[in-house]
Amino acid sequence: MTLRNDPRFQPVDASVVPRFANPATFMRTQRAAVDDGVDIALVGVPFDLGTNFRTGARSGPAAVREASRIIRQVHPTSGTAPFKLCNVADVGDAPVNALDLDASIRSIEDFFARIHAAGAVPIAVGGDHTIPIPILRAIARGRPVGVVHFDAHPDTLDELLGTRINHATTFRRGVEEGLIDPKRTIQIGLRGSRFGDDDLKYGYDVGMRIVTMDDYEEMGRAAAIEEIHRVTADGPVYISFDIDGLDPAYAMGTGVPEVGGLSMRDCQVMLRSLRGKFLVGADISEVAPMYDPTGHTALNAANLMFEMLCVIAEDVDRRRNR
Amino acid sequence: MTLRNDPRFQPVDASVVPRFANPATFMRTQRAAVDDGVDIALVGVPFDLGTNFRTGARSGPAAVREASRIIRQVHPTSGTAPFKLCNVADVGDAPVNALDLDASIRSIEDFFARIHAAGAVPIAVGGDHTIPIPILRAIARGRPVGVVHFDAHPDTLDELLGTRINHATTFRRGVEEGLIDPKRTIQIGLRGSRFGDDDLKYGYDVGMRIVTMDDYEEMGRAAAIEEIHRVTADGPVYISFDIDGLDPAYAMGTGVPEVGGLSMRDCQVMLRSLRGKFLVGADISEVAPMYDPTGHTALNAANLMFEMLCVIAEDVDRRRNR
Amino acid sequence: MTLRNDPRFQPVDASVVPRFANPATFMRTQRAAVDDGVDIALVGVPFDLGTNFRTGARSGPAAVREASRIIRQVHPTSGTAPFKLCNVADVGDAPVNALDLDASIRSIEDFFARIHAAGAVPIAVGGDHTIPIPILRAIARGRPVGVVHFDAHPDTLDELLGTRINHATTFRRGVEEGLIDPKRTIQIGLRGSRFGDDDLKYGYDVGMRIVTMDDYEEMGRAAAIEEIHRVTADGPVYISFDIDGLDPAYAMGTGVPEVGGLSMRDCQVMLRSLRGKFLVGADISEVAPMYDPTGHTALNAANLMFEMLCVIAEDVDRRRNR
Amino acid sequence: MTLRNDPRFQPVDASVVPRFANPATFMRTQRAAVDDGVDIALVGVPFDLGTNFRTGARSGPAAVREASRIIRQVHPTSGTAPFKLCNVADVGDAPVNALDLDASIRSIEDFFARIHAAGAVPIAVGGDHTIPIPILRAIARGRPVGVVHFDAHPDTLDELLGTRINHATTFRRGVEEGLIDPKRTIQIGLRGSRFGDDDLKYGYDVGMRIVTMDDYEEMGRAAAIEEIHRVTADGPVYISFDIDGLDPAYAMGTGVPEVGGLSMRDCQVMLRSLRGKFLVGADISEVAPMYDPTGHTALNAANLMFEMLCVIAEDVDRRRNR
Amino acid sequence: MTLRNDPRFQPVDASVVPRFANPATFMRTQRAAVDDGVDIALVGVPFDLGTNFRTGARSGPAAVREASRIIRQVHPTSGTAPFKLCNVADVGDAPVNALDLDASIRSIEDFFARIHAAGAVPIAVGGDHTIPIPILRAIARGRPVGVVHFDAHPDTLDELLGTRINHATTFRRGVEEGLIDPKRTIQIGLRGSRFGDDDLKYGYDVGMRIVTMDDYEEMGRAAAIEEIHRVTADGPVYISFDIDGLDPAYAMGTGVPEVGGLSMRDCQVMLRSLRGKFLVGADISEVAPMYDPTGHTALNAANLMFEMLCVIAEDVDRRRNR
Amino acid sequence: MTLRNDPRFQPVDASVVPRFANPATFMRTQRAAVDDGVDIALVGVPFDLGTNFRTGARSGPAAVREASRIIRQVHPTSGTAPFKLCNVADVGDAPVNALDLDASIRSIEDFFARIHAAGAVPIAVGGDHTIPIPILRAIARGRPVGVVHFDAHPDTLDELLGTRINHATTFRRGVEEGLIDPKRTIQIGLRGSRFGDDDLKYGYDVGMRIVTMDDYEEMGRAAAIEEIHRVTADGPVYISFDIDGLDPAYAMGTGVPEVGGLSMRDCQVMLRSLRGKFLVGADISEVAPMYDPTGHTALNAANLMFEMLCVIAEDVDRRRNR
Repeated sequence: MTLRNDPRFQPVDASVVPRFANPATFMRTQRAAVDDGVDIALVGVPFDLGTNFRTGARSGPAAVREASRIIRQVHPTSGTAPFKLCNVADVGDAPVNALDLDASIRSIEDFFARIHAAGAVPIAVGGDHTIPIPILRAIARGRPVGVVHFDAHPDTLDELLGTRINHATTFRRGVEEGLIDPKRTIQIGLRGSRFGDDDLKYGYDVGMRIVTMDDYEEMGRAAAIEEIHRVTADGPVYISFDIDGLDPAYAMGTGVPEVGGLSMRDCQVMLRSLRGKFLVGADISEVAPMYDPTGHTALNAANLMFEMLCVIAEDVDRRRNR
Repeated sequence: MTLRNDPRFQPVDASVVPRFANPATFMRTQRAAVDDGVDIALVGVPFDLGTNFRTGARSGPAAVREASRIIRQVHPTSGTAPFKLCNVADVGDAPVNALDLDASIRSIEDFFARIHAAGAVPIAVGGDHTIPIPILRAIARGRPVGVVHFDAHPDTLDELLGTRINHATTFRRGVEEGLIDPKRTIQIGLRGSRFGDDDLKYGYDVGMRIVTMDDYEEMGRAAAIEEIHRVTADGPVYISFDIDGLDPAYAMGTGVPEVGGLSMRDCQVMLRSLRGKFLVGADISEVAPMYDPTGHTALNAANLMFEMLCVIAEDVDRRRNR
Repeated sequence: MTLRNDPRFQPVDASVVPRFANPATFMRTQRAAVDDGVDIALVGVPFDLGTNFRTGARSGPAAVREASRIIRQVHPTSGTAPFKLCNVADVGDAPVNALDLDASIRSIEDFFARIHAAGAVPIAVGGDHTIPIPILRAIARGRPVGVVHFDAHPDTLDELLGTRINHATTFRRGVEEGLIDPKRTIQIGLRGSRFGDDDLKYGYDVGMRIVTMDDYEEMGRAAAIEEIHRVTADGPVYISFDIDGLDPAYAMGTGVPEVGGLSMRDCQVMLRSLRGKFLVGADISEVAPMYDPTGHTALNAANLMFEMLCVIAEDVDRRRNR
Repeated sequence: MTLRNDPRFQPVDASVVPRFANPATFMRTQRAAVDDGVDIALVGVPFDLGTNFRTGARSGPAAVREASRIIRQVHPTSGTAPFKLCNVADVGDAPVNALDLDASIRSIEDFFARIHAAGAVPIAVGGDHTIPIPILRAIARGRPVGVVHFDAHPDTLDELLGTRINHATTFRRGVEEGLIDPKRTIQIGLRGSRFGDDDLKYGYDVGMRIVTMDDYEEMGRAAAIEEIHRVTADGPVYISFDIDGLDPAYAMGTGVPEVGGLSMRDCQVMLRSLRGKFLVGADISEVAPMYDPTGHTALNAANLMFEMLCVIAEDVDRRRNR
Repeated sequence: MTLRNDPRFQPVDASVVPRFANPATFMRTQRAAVDDGVDIALVGVPFDLGTNFRTGARSGPAAVREASRIIRQVHPTSGTAPFKLCNVADVGDAPVNALDLDASIRSIEDFFARIHAAGAVPIAVGGDHTIPIPILRAIARGRPVGVVHFDAHPDTLDELLGTRINHATTFRRGVEEGLIDPKRTIQIGLRGSRFGDDDLKYGYDVGMRIVTMDDYEEMGRAAAIEEIHRVTADGPVYISFDIDGLDPAYAMGTGVPEVGGLSMRDCQVMLRSLRGKFLVGADISEVAPMYDPTGHTALNAANLMFEMLCVIAEDVDRRRNR
Repeated sequence: MTLRNDPRFQPVDASVVPRFANPATFMRTQRAAVDDGVDIALVGVPFDLGTNFRTGARSGPAAVREASRIIRQVHPTSGTAPFKLCNVADVGDAPVNALDLDASIRSIEDFFARIHAAGAVPIAVGGDHTIPIPILRAIARGRPVGVVHFDAHPDTLDELLGTRINHATTFRRGVEEGLIDPKRTIQIGLRGSRFGDDDLKYGYDVGMRIVTMDDYEEMGRAAAIEEIHRVTADGPVYISFDIDGLDPAYAMGTGVPEVGGLSMRDCQVMLRSLRGKFLVGADISEVAPMYDPTGHTALNAANLMFEMLCVIAEDVDRRRNR
């Protein structure tokens, strides 16, 4: 471990500038362009044209930036100091067209391709859960990634309302396009009433490891963590966290809340367990802040982002120093 | 005036069933199919794919149905009893595709074409302010209508983000498609910072009567009402009420609130002034209830709907008995 | 004018104890028993069993006590210092039975009878608008009072859902029972869709002066004030303020909000105009705080209470010194 | 199992009509009259005159209808497809009188008697927790039922404020009237500060199985489920779910929230365990949506209703095919 | 145990006066002066000048008083009836200066010194978490107390923004001033991202027993309770509960919410375990109600206060009767 | 008028980047350092240690930045395009110490002194209404300014709670320190109950023009505008807008809302009237967003800021080109 500790990339110091002050960036990091030497790019993707029930995740990045004012610099359990290890910056939001799904998917892909080309690992805040498609097109083409996928829904339908790119088909498209290796993919937290008997069938068929809430409760968190590691193995891993994986007690600010879900604590610990994995990117999706006036959902999202950042920063540091 | 007073079309009686009881329909009217003898069709249009800032108007119809529980049966000023004069029913929502703007515009048009074919006058609750386009395509083809248009924004841009059908281009498209007679169209309440110098230019160029908030305040409500009558004259008239025409003190539950706007009282009185006009349809758009947890915006929308209903019912009755 | 300035009855001094501190009483007055020498009794009436739509006014007194922390000691226009002129105290809430309308009406009457017997003038915070009945039974038996009645609704139905004592029949019952002199009664702010043609008929028939919103707007506030004075003349006057007389922009926290109503400013000025009247009591009713999470409705109620207090204190002082 | 799959009784298909569209009914089922061949009647009971603290449950049915838009058609754990198994419909709300407790109790009983006479099993959404009394009078007279009762409070007081029918005496009255078999009754989740030492005494005395939160935690969910089965045995069983059985983290939208309660997950699993029981009816009570602007409480209630529906549908199907 | 059962100190009886009625005091106890024979003084400390992020805890006492209307008289698990055992009263709020930190700290100390001198045990509701300093200066000078400290943060920094008395330095100052015995102090629930590596160092260095969330989860609640008893041993014990010790699912109404925290149930049980300890005072701090419009945070605080009251009342009774 | 139109200082273009995207700055302007050639500096002052009732204005700048996403580029009435005329930028927040009033006042002054030294005109968003003091110390020393002061309160007390620098003494201190020329100062909107008879005395004594709400209503807006011009005359003018000058229907999100206030429309028009004045700075203060979950208050503040910007930009342009 060699601390980069680049002064250009230190977040605003709360002992000098109070956390409520100044424009909000993700975790008070500096704004930077992708090609400024960024190791880990924090990026918003304010896209929500892929939703078929309650919409509004376009406002997710703004809300998570505000909520992430509370984040400090050192991880309480691992002691990781991500801003010392890597150059972490808020690179702004991927371009989207608020009226055109297809154009947005393309421009999001382009933006992440630039991040990828610059050698940075992206951590994205959606936006609805369509966004892993353009992200993975940018970073996983030619090398299918394993996915650690937290969600209430499998998102593996073939189509929704006659369209094929939307927030309910993402992980099927990803497999079909060769971006996702289903055998190294694990879905955690699935639950909620289903449209039909086959909602989960595709995942099982292609060999995803599916851990429903029933499964999760039966096996316990420790066993779930073992499964995450067993399934994802040694290859590149992408983390995709649909905020509705959390119970609505933690995340009412989302489009399709499903009751009886994961606790924030369990999700924190599962994310922490990813230390040592080869991590190529991550997203937190479906934060729709207008449904949660207290900001609790965005607060949880900001903290999940910090968990992701810590494990990714360690991995980036390790790979750099290998 | 011949009272229809059809027992099949009487709203639920609040002296028997309290207003908080039973599933909500618009103003507690009966559900009916369009071809069941409906004179005035109350219809939701839960479409919001045409918005470029804050979204959520897809939930407008549900919210207005709930809020309209409070509406009673007789108008306090005119004494109009619309449910006695006409067969008024909630015909449900126009079909929309939550992921496909173009398909939605077509299916909305088809639904209103059926209403029109059945001889009913529609009063629509949006949805975003794109919806007058499919509505007018259904009811105004071949006979351009005058429009009484309440709004903070002119909605006469040529395009937005490269698209031509959206909530900012509606009244330009309407003119271009021969659905709207700009000479018989009046826009009331325009205000708010502008993208450029030309935001209102199109309207002026094609001869719309534009009454900005400055104009409105200067001339006063009575003169504005005279202008409405002078401009719309004797031909068919369509009423289009973007809820953001109201000041945000009355309507924070909308996508693009503009401060310094119309009062609810003034809008009520202006709508009441439309007695005697030849009224072919109406919409109330841009109610996005998630931004207004008190329900005030939807309450105002429900009352504006009742104002529209009363003047339309009188007109329908008059035309029937002519 | 002789200042009483009784130290036992001075509100908590904000220059010593900040307004956010200590248990809330009405306007930070001292708690006192009715027979402790109180001139003006501030009293809650947490009763809401008379409502036929949205309920919750039982929580009105608690909310107004909290909101009234902001009230200071001197009236900005008249300079009246009510706490110097009179012994003003919070005498607590009238006893109610949360499950029994009839028992509550009786116990409320008893409580106000004690206030009346002690020579104090009550200013009540409801509770729903049934409460003037027990109050007037206590203070107006044998001497019918004129009423200055602010409201969206006339509350002069004969019955509601088969019952005769409820928030929609109050002022009819009051007339029938000889508690209210309809000829010296004025209703201001009436509006909103009606159940039938006859909603206001009773009031007109018995000679109440009815000022609908249409009337009010046409005549203007100054003429309305003249009418208040002309109608109420020299006899005893009771003030009854249903908070829904205000426009919902000022009072969404109520059971039956009616759009297009009075402004707070107008109501303040009309109440101020009551200087010099013979005032025997007052109520503010229908604050249901759960429908207004910002507390705006209760804030307005607290300020209306202060307006009432100032004119009543002047009158009590004048009568005492006559 | 023979699928009825009656096309008249299929809920609105979300792949055709988005879930945010059209008037809300319980779980998007069709409206039907009780005698139209309904097997399972979803019914609102907007009654809240039996509450002694915070009121507002009269708005529960409307809120749960809105929240239940999210419910799909197949149970994620059991695979039950209730709308295929049985004719399920929204039969509207039981008649209530907003001002008269006694009249309401009678009219609610009458409505459920009609449901019962038509051979349908009711699932009711209150309203306050007085409503099991009229429901059980309609469906359990002559055959005392066992009750699976989730609640923070025992509701077995003898009287409250001098009245005997209210939301705190329900299960004592039920036993006294021979509607409830206390020996086959289990109360789960009891907690919260008590009025006196004897709050739970009646239940113990008559042989109810009381599982306080302390008991529940000590024995664990699996043992609690065993107790439910042991206690209720083979006779007819009624499910009564006071939403305040849930911890306030899941249900702030209720009149008397008690901290330290059940999790939604545990309640889902306990309800699921009722597969195979002889189930004669159910209610979910005390949803007072104005205290929970996020809609979380109503969302949980809608999902609990779906859990009840699935186990009841299986039982109705089984009994039909026996 | 000798019941005092002093009629002057009985809370308002909910079977006579409904819980929603009358001005709110803590748990509906009587107001009393400190020297009126009070055994346990419930006291607000509306001070929030010690906060460096989100402020507003000055409104905590008012909110907890309102929320505590729901509290009844007997503990559900222990059967303790604190109002029978001891003279419990609401002694009002400690004096504070809203603009002067130092003056407030002094006046708070003076107020608690008077409580202490009168022989009463204080239970305080803050206010931010600076308040244990003036409280302990009043009650622990010369006899360092052990502390049972629930919190997300250690509050043992040396200084914050150049100041030494604030809500982040409290427990370090307490040790330095000889008010707190670190060896008999236990901190439970610590978590959240840290400013630096040394945030917890002081506590470890001086021998506090620190139970982070990781520790807590690993050891379990029963072991944590054992640790509480082992650490605090037989000497005087003070309880300090920063409401942010709870997970934000239970307490969003606070200045610095940290995700992944304690459940309300666990905190209740841990507080209950303090029966038999020598308890000299307690506080609940950092309730900032404006961030939680549902009142959930204040509801939890009110219940935690009741848990504290029950164990303290038993101890006071035992010591009196020793 | 020479358009600067500096490309470095153009706000984000909404036709390219949707308004919901990217970190929020004031009106989507670019971030810049003060000495980067800025003509008009938009600056936050997150200070609220000067408040004696409800606090929280430290979060004002963050909320106004978010709300100002809606602002476009051209003024609807004047046609002013401020971002073309001048280099306008968000220079961040003035440094404050969240725990130390005196240190904050000094650091705020220093920050504005740098702005002033760089030749830029500041438009500040508070923070509580103490902030004009450090601002004026920076920009008005040696040249007393006239002030156009919108407010419900005069803020001319001599001291508050024993302190002399706080949000109630600002304009008295300003006069005493020679920063404000009282003869060229006008206060508009004063109202609300008063602490004593002398609350306004100081202002009258030193010759401020005081326009209470009563005065304002009597004279009308046009005359008020004339008074503004007459009073402020030709010298340097500072604009100070306490958001509580607005009626609470427009601004509940503030610490001390006073009912019966100014409308947003009137304030817009009055600000617009300042075209042509010699304007040296401005502030909008007392936005405390946690009291207004809809964001209405911050929306109004953002629009008032745009009004100020337009008149100041014209003035800066004119002076530059003189």
